[in-house]
Amino acid sequence: MTHASRRARLAAALPEHDTAAVLVTWPVNVRYLTGLSSSNAAVLVTGTGEAALATDSRYLETAEAVCEGVEVIEDRDVAGALLGRVPHTARVAVEAGHMSVGQFGRLAAAHPGLTPVDGLVEAVRAVKDEGEIAALRRACAITDEAFSLVVERVVPGVTERRVARWLEAAMVELGADKPAFDSIVASGPNGSIPHHSPSDRPIERGDLVTMDFGARYDGYHADMTRTVAVGPPASWQRDLYDLVRRAQRAGRHAVRPGATAGEVDAAARAVIAEAGQAERFGHGLGHGVGLEIHELPFLGPGRTGRLEDRVPITVEPGVYLPGRGGVRIEDTLITRGDGPELLTLTTKELLVL
Amino acid sequence: MTHASRRARLAAALPEHDTAAVLVTWPVNVRYLTGLSSSNAAVLVTGTGEAALATDSRYLETAEAVCEGVEVIEDRDVAGALLGRVPHTARVAVEAGHMSVGQFGRLAAAHPGLTPVDGLVEAVRAVKDEGEIAALRRACAITDEAFSLVVERVVPGVTERRVARWLEAAMVELGADKPAFDSIVASGPNGSIPHHSPSDRPIERGDLVTMDFGARYDGYHADMTRTVAVGPPASWQRDLYDLVRRAQRAGRHAVRPGATAGEVDAAARAVIAEAGQAERFGHGLGHGVGLEIHELPFLGPGRTGRLEDRVPITVEPGVYLPGRGGVRIEDTLITRGDGPELLTLTTKELLVL
Repeated sequence: MTHASRRARLAAALPEHDTAAVLVTWPVNVRYLTGLSSSNAAVLVTGTGEAALATDSRYLETAEAVCEGVEVIEDRDVAGALLGRVPHTARVAVEAGHMSVGQFGRLAAAHPGLTPVDGLVEAVRAVKDEGEIAALRRACAITDEAFSLVVERVVPGVTERRVARWLEAAMVELGADKPAFDSIVASGPNGSIPHHSPSDRPIERGDLVTMDFGARYDGYHADMTRTVAVGPPASWQRDLYDLVRRAQRAGRHAVRPGATAGEVDAAARAVIAEAGQAERFGHGLGHGVGLEIHELPFLGPGRTGRLEDRVPITVEPGVYLPGRGGVRIEDTLITRGDGPELLTLTTKELLVL
Repeated sequence: MTHASRRARLAAALPEHDTAAVLVTWPVNVRYLTGLSSSNAAVLVTGTGEAALATDSRYLETAEAVCEGVEVIEDRDVAGALLGRVPHTARVAVEAGHMSVGQFGRLAAAHPGLTPVDGLVEAVRAVKDEGEIAALRRACAITDEAFSLVVERVVPGVTERRVARWLEAAMVELGADKPAFDSIVASGPNGSIPHHSPSDRPIERGDLVTMDFGARYDGYHADMTRTVAVGPPASWQRDLYDLVRRAQRAGRHAVRPGATAGEVDAAARAVIAEAGQAERFGHGLGHGVGLEIHELPFLGPGRTGRLEDRVPITVEPGVYLPGRGGVRIEDTLITRGDGPELLTLTTKELLVL
């Protein structure tokens, strides 16, 4: 039922693009619409919500077991097999952001009505049902618990890489499918690199250490960042932390259905700008999360799209001082009419280890 | 020097496609050509081998540190920034298999000379240097060691999911970046599903259990499959194992520089066909591995490309009996003029646990 109602919402969007059907080939979107996880499957959804799925022999038995209300076809050429079932001149939407230009060229030679459309399934995916939110809540709970288990082991002499592995092992042990993304552990001066890869640098007394990580649970991704101090922080470190914390709070408080993505970004960014550090916050404020770690909507300067109800979103301002270090604080939360639901519950007090 | 020589090999392929430069946007290929791992970076390589890389502020400091001999530009619109530096009518190759049809349409509106070309960088990547092979060797050694640590814990009552987590935790503990792909653990009747996702099914006495997993080390992917018996195997299980083992040996012995991908596949497939099981082996024999878990070349029926020297390749026949179970045996090896170098060294005797 869940998957059928998703397909119905997708089908309802087709007339707007003047297409009779949509061919979905991106694995995450195929899973969203049918329940099948596969590296080689495609689904064709028509304007009436009927669906056919093609996959190869490796996934056939699973497809037949999990895809309710979907005709399952065995064919290695998954896109070609499905397009073979519609008139060759029919206007069929394909995923502009996912189908490669090479594949499009090959398919369009036989099917001149193929029409690239951006973000059709992603727009349906942005608003989550409560089942999806429950999976995200569990992913975030695992993330919180992994942090609590590992943080006390963050002491001078331990390398960034070691901390990253501990976090990832703890999440898997606690029931995660796997880490939601490559964990970031950035200590001391490395903290000025927002997407630093964990290195063999030993953590030192006097470091700030930023940990950006999360669990994937049942396909859904958590995303959390905390920055901690190893030993008593210097006053510039405490000031930097307080600044980012205030900005993060302002961003969280701006998250509500109806707000534009630019307004939420601006609420946090203004705090950092007032402190004269606008140039040290060079990335967007946050992004949607779900079956992908980065998905619609994106929070950033000037973005005009409005948040809807039940949208999971990260709020993650950071200030990065080259050569010295940085602070980033990030939560995953859900837009709700009565105020955002915070999913990552780890304290945002500055922890001094 | 390594990256510069890769760029030179890429540049040498441009005249054949009548292009003045190539814009590379696929993250794995950007890393291969520059050393930078980033989710938002692109590199433009000209016919003379000169290169410029664009990335956003999150990766800038790292890019400047790691990209030798490459001009580094900060711009969030990485492809647009690089194309802005060539005449707007210049013929510039883009990655047909990676660039989305949507992005191509947007870029080609301003740059009508953009030309999708398939597999330009992948062809350069297929033949590995000894540094890459050393990373693969280490990835495979970690994989072997994880198997040896976990296999004795595969006993009745343990779930597939548990075994998969043990394998993944062991690999990370042994120094892997992370698992090379989502591990497959398929027990009993689930063994007939080549790409089965580990479930909560408890392993039972009398099961065959197929484990398909590998470590990623320094970006390079190992891939190994072993099938074991839990308790003394029935005669059909032993016969099935012996059949797949003979096919796998025949496939390995056919791996040599100069062989076609179809010949290697046929060597293994003939063994299975002679036993009347051709229809129960529904996938290709193997694939290249390297910075991706599946890369050129692919071994399959009728494939005419020839293997070169120093190409890592998997050999992984399987026979799958719906409702009963299956056996797959897979190694990663390297083509060498004096016979293939086997990287996954775990025994292929049938282990009875």
